[in-house]
Amino acid sequence: MKFLLALALCSSALAFAGESVRPKYEIDLSNPYSTDSVPAYAGVHASVHAYIDDRLDAHTAALQRWMRQPSISAQNVGVRDMAEMVRGDFEALGFAEAELVETRGHPGVWGYYDAGAEKTLMVYMMYDVQPVDPEDWRSPPFKAAIVDTPQGRAIMARGATNQKGPQRALLNAVESILAVDGELPVNLMITAEGEEELGSPNYPEIIDTYEARLRQADGVIFPMSGQDAQGQASLVLGVKGIIYWELEARGGAWGGPVEAEIHGSYKAIADSPVLRLIKAISTLVSDDGNTIEVPGYYNGVRPPTAEEQSLIAGYVQKENLATLRELFGIERWIDGMEGVDVLHELIYTPTMNIDGLWAGYTGEGVKTILPHMATAKMDSRLPIGIDPDEALAKIRAHLDANGFEDVAMNVLAAYPASQTSVDTDLVRSAIAVYKRYGATPIVNPRIAGSAPFYQFTERLGLPMIPFGLGHGRGAHAPNEVYVVDSAGQVAGLAEIEKAYVDLLYAFAAD
Amino acid sequence: MKFLLALALCSSALAFAGESVRPKYEIDLSNPYSTDSVPAYAGVHASVHAYIDDRLDAHTAALQRWMRQPSISAQNVGVRDMAEMVRGDFEALGFAEAELVETRGHPGVWGYYDAGAEKTLMVYMMYDVQPVDPEDWRSPPFKAAIVDTPQGRAIMARGATNQKGPQRALLNAVESILAVDGELPVNLMITAEGEEELGSPNYPEIIDTYEARLRQADGVIFPMSGQDAQGQASLVLGVKGIIYWELEARGGAWGGPVEAEIHGSYKAIADSPVLRLIKAISTLVSDDGNTIEVPGYYNGVRPPTAEEQSLIAGYVQKENLATLRELFGIERWIDGMEGVDVLHELIYTPTMNIDGLWAGYTGEGVKTILPHMATAKMDSRLPIGIDPDEALAKIRAHLDANGFEDVAMNVLAAYPASQTSVDTDLVRSAIAVYKRYGATPIVNPRIAGSAPFYQFTERLGLPMIPFGLGHGRGAHAPNEVYVVDSAGQVAGLAEIEKAYVDLLYAFAAD
Repeated sequence: MKFLLALALCSSALAFAGESVRPKYEIDLSNPYSTDSVPAYAGVHASVHAYIDDRLDAHTAALQRWMRQPSISAQNVGVRDMAEMVRGDFEALGFAEAELVETRGHPGVWGYYDAGAEKTLMVYMMYDVQPVDPEDWRSPPFKAAIVDTPQGRAIMARGATNQKGPQRALLNAVESILAVDGELPVNLMITAEGEEELGSPNYPEIIDTYEARLRQADGVIFPMSGQDAQGQASLVLGVKGIIYWELEARGGAWGGPVEAEIHGSYKAIADSPVLRLIKAISTLVSDDGNTIEVPGYYNGVRPPTAEEQSLIAGYVQKENLATLRELFGIERWIDGMEGVDVLHELIYTPTMNIDGLWAGYTGEGVKTILPHMATAKMDSRLPIGIDPDEALAKIRAHLDANGFEDVAMNVLAAYPASQTSVDTDLVRSAIAVYKRYGATPIVNPRIAGSAPFYQFTERLGLPMIPFGLGHGRGAHAPNEVYVVDSAGQVAGLAEIEKAYVDLLYAFAAD
Repeated sequence: MKFLLALALCSSALAFAGESVRPKYEIDLSNPYSTDSVPAYAGVHASVHAYIDDRLDAHTAALQRWMRQPSISAQNVGVRDMAEMVRGDFEALGFAEAELVETRGHPGVWGYYDAGAEKTLMVYMMYDVQPVDPEDWRSPPFKAAIVDTPQGRAIMARGATNQKGPQRALLNAVESILAVDGELPVNLMITAEGEEELGSPNYPEIIDTYEARLRQADGVIFPMSGQDAQGQASLVLGVKGIIYWELEARGGAWGGPVEAEIHGSYKAIADSPVLRLIKAISTLVSDDGNTIEVPGYYNGVRPPTAEEQSLIAGYVQKENLATLRELFGIERWIDGMEGVDVLHELIYTPTMNIDGLWAGYTGEGVKTILPHMATAKMDSRLPIGIDPDEALAKIRAHLDANGFEDVAMNVLAAYPASQTSVDTDLVRSAIAVYKRYGATPIVNPRIAGSAPFYQFTERLGLPMIPFGLGHGRGAHAPNEVYVVDSAGQVAGLAEIEKAYVDLLYAFAAD
């Protein structure tokens, strides 16, 4: 009842937004999914676990070694050195194959560990990180210092939780199994890319090289900090796709200065490329900025399946979405929505966002110019059912139809969404292991963020999940941290590694 | 007839622009002003002129000394050192008074030379310059190197023509008269400010200090490069006013992230301050960016007077406005207008311009964030009749009325337009001197640019004109130059200084 009321309020609000209307589906909340059907993992690996406890200082140092190596893909800082470090670590662990994979962009890294096992786990890794503004950091972003956080002692570094900490923790687990048991319970295939933060433009090339072998795998994990600040674990079954582009307006045949800025007083007779960009962008969204006005942009969004509705119903019973809002320091979500409406937007709504914008004089004080160009960086997150190339074409056609043929569109990334079913061996193994550590996960049918997981689910046909105990935050922001020594509520590094050990055994046995 | 046709075309084009319509006045072109009524200056000052020829190297070096001293008011670079240099030069020339004038901002400089003469000429100077992007310059902006240009050898420097070259050339002329004739024909009052490029926020304080004495002056000049690249001189009788402000959108009670950027995927549920700024700015102007949609913004523009219509009629007979368009590398003016329509816009149309714009990530490649703030630097040029404070209040009220109360407006500068009549001693003296050097000026009733000349015309009640032979270009742009050794068409430094000598004598005798 509450949800239907929210739906009605939302529809009336949308009447002000323009011609387009965001998709809004009815969701049956009567059949909520529950993890009660999956028992906690019961396997015992006491010697491996003890080895991890003994080696914790060295294991922590291995994480810091990765985090101290910058690998900013957008600025080509330290990228190849990081790739070599990953390859070297595979080799040191005894991988039969450990090699760089050259692409048109930054290299990938391939690792294969042959355990002679029946099952094969594929691991997706990203070794690149986001750019940094060092002056915004409490501790230098590549110092990887140990700092205190409310959740316990943590490593502060760019890439701490996104994604070096969880990934190197998995390798520590692999090292521990090999040291104690002498062999892994599963074969491992690892592909690491150095362009995730660029939208993974060349990751398909890495898959190309190993496609036939990767199809023999039984599932894919992406090492991840799966716990929030209170220790609550989440299991994410899907991601949105993304398109990312730059819009650039310049003077030209339509008017405006072509070669350089001119004195601002000539605005009386000269067109402004900055105002042109503003007007072009303004046509893309409703007055409140929240509904995309590109014709047909919402067409094709796949409505909720029965499984998704069950997962959503289960999710809203467990998750308080207002917590996220408070964490971000946001006073209200769009249209003042809360609860299941928020989840609906995150899962099913294509977005239109400006990541960056610049033109003319951006320094202090007064400079009176009419700039000859203006640029915006933009992205759109795509739910299941929206093709990235079609979305880009619709934006281009809309700009053209509104007379903005001269506004250039430079595409930097484009890939579709991805979805894994909850009804798979891999997902059941993950839930079982989480439960063993008292971290029964909230199962999230699909997050609003993007990753190129379509390569696994759509192309290779494999179930794929991010997995891992542990807590981190500050991905894509200053002061990124990854907790290694828990104050009690979240897993510390030892438990994180033990859970990876257990997952390998659980998946082998399932 | 041609003008009426253009007017009709323009009016029909405006029908598409929105509810607001730019002011458009009929202008009587039947009574064109001509400088034929003013005879060339006939006074002979041969010894002073010969002195200038002898001292040309030292005089050139005096210009370079000023240009090599950075004085970027917007960034507080070298400003006080430049003020001291100006003061020291006054003192060295024998000024009875030469002192810094402290203000709330950068200091002014006051100089008084008492010749015991009947007439007093006031000189307005600005010693500050625009910021620079050194990488855009062929020669470093504060090297003041001699470079070749099509008009002859020139000094390249930030401030070369705007305004250090012409100003120090006038002082060279003063030095020459004193050296040869022993006394000046007029008393001089000089006020120099260091914040012209900031919109002269504190220049009124300088006037405050000397107001009673300044009212005793008989006219004001602003040393200026008065010739275009072909040697054609212009005499400008008026300037527009200006308001300059920043608009800033931030997350807050209305929505959006408040404290820091968040991950871009949350655009699905979070408002965007960047889109909010874009929508706010978009309400200010028509779809083509050229008509201001702020209600009543055009109210009060003073229609052309009989003198102005006569001056406009004379001006359009002499000036080819398409040359300016080609100089700027602009393919078409707004609405494709040419000729008297262009002049009309420059003189009578308030503008709305974006000088700079920034938000979020402006580096290379992909960074996926939802920024928590966005900022624009904007200005509006104001014709005679528009009060700056009222204009600012209308913009604020319009933003509020459109629901953008949260978008902050930070005013950096505001002053009104200024106008001098062609029917004054000072203007006749200037025309006479220009004609003596074969540089019969085109008389421009009012330019589109701004300067705080209202202080002289409106406040002190004095006629005021920019004056000077010579050619420069690149004000507010890279590779600014001031020609010192002419290839033939424009005056070189010697002639520039001789004309200043003659103006002082002509004005004294008029």
